[in-house]
Amino acid sequence: MALTDVKALTFDVFGTVVNWRDSIAREAKACLEPRGYRKDWHDFADKWRARYQPAMAKVRSGERPWAKLDDLHRENLVELLKEFEIAGLGEADIDHLNRAWHRLDGWPDTVEGLTRLKRKYILATLSNGNVALMVNMAKYAGLPWDAILGAEIARAYKPQPEAYDRTAEFLGLEPGQCMMVAAHDGDLVAARSRGFHTAFVSRPLEHGANKTRDLKAEHDFYVIAEDFIDLAKKLGC
Amino acid sequence: MALTDVKALTFDVFGTVVNWRDSIAREAKACLEPRGYRKDWHDFADKWRARYQPAMAKVRSGERPWAKLDDLHRENLVELLKEFEIAGLGEADIDHLNRAWHRLDGWPDTVEGLTRLKRKYILATLSNGNVALMVNMAKYAGLPWDAILGAEIARAYKPQPEAYDRTAEFLGLEPGQCMMVAAHDGDLVAARSRGFHTAFVSRPLEHGANKTRDLKAEHDFYVIAEDFIDLAKKLGC
Repeated sequence: MALTDVKALTFDVFGTVVNWRDSIAREAKACLEPRGYRKDWHDFADKWRARYQPAMAKVRSGERPWAKLDDLHRENLVELLKEFEIAGLGEADIDHLNRAWHRLDGWPDTVEGLTRLKRKYILATLSNGNVALMVNMAKYAGLPWDAILGAEIARAYKPQPEAYDRTAEFLGLEPGQCMMVAAHDGDLVAARSRGFHTAFVSRPLEHGANKTRDLKAEHDFYVIAEDFIDLAKKLGC
Repeated sequence: MALTDVKALTFDVFGTVVNWRDSIAREAKACLEPRGYRKDWHDFADKWRARYQPAMAKVRSGERPWAKLDDLHRENLVELLKEFEIAGLGEADIDHLNRAWHRLDGWPDTVEGLTRLKRKYILATLSNGNVALMVNMAKYAGLPWDAILGAEIARAYKPQPEAYDRTAEFLGLEPGQCMMVAAHDGDLVAARSRGFHTAFVSRPLEHGANKTRDLKAEHDFYVIAEDFIDLAKKLGC
């Protein structure tokens, strides 16, 4: 299907729409420094994020039943606090820190870019984040989604095919009427294999100075954009 | 839980948010009069709607497997066209007319009221309409939802308990942190029995001059409002 058939843009969120690393570092610092802990909070954020793929892998493989990302994040946080030798937090404190993932800032171009894109397209999340996480983040960061879809609704974590297939199905669209927007090659390659159009958006600061991959599109995606404003321009919005 | 604990308003949509009767009559007329048919299009709308509950009842009872509302609407439309002795429509014409339910107008207060309510609350659909129907209607009528939830996501048609329970669960909220907004007593009574707060909004014109029930709240709901602007006022938005 041609680009003119695209009705919906489906978005990866962590890294593509929001700057999780700086936001998590800020939230961890705000929560834990008043308790007397001095740590490298960006390292804390990186190590929390490093536990993300292995936790989802156990769900994808069927080693454990479905668990939403809030629950995986919390299990990972409990382990991470041990690794950083941080003790004495109550359950409610851990819950609050865990919901740091609901309080992530957009990139500087995010809200303006999405607002422009929304005039012409349906904007839906296609993230591994669960619905509550995505809804709360949207309220916090002002993200104008038309629909919150993705892993929890599809009961499948990206890059499993069902995550893409079912998202298109819920929208009542053919995959070729959807365009996946992400800053990560792997996500786009998986979406493309299910018939989605693809747009790569550069987010060179996602991992701070440490980002060693996904710095540029490594495949021939439909659109390659600098940021969401550039994407809006390239899609004629 | 107290009213101050409410984080999300969950909305019935057909009749409560949008004026389905006049919109369907308009769409049917626009589609069918150019083909030479002269009918009472409000009667056509009423008779299409009359087939709605019986069709869902078969899914609720397990007599047939899950089917989304777009599909039930279409089956009902095919029968309705026979009843009205309207013939000669192709499959694509029937599809277009069926998607009249995606092109319903809000009541005059709808967009302003929702926009005010959105500043303070998460606004989610809790309709028996499927996701694509709700998303397309929101684009058409400018409805600023934070999340599209309800029957298709919960795989249960209201007033089944699971429709309410699972909607709260997807939002990561207790039922007492949700308030159901509807123009129909039955929906609110069902929501209340699952622990939701309730707000009744009067929509005396939903059935034109024919509305004989739900003209006023018949139960002691938490909030009783004239329209969405009145609801916003009463909720301090």
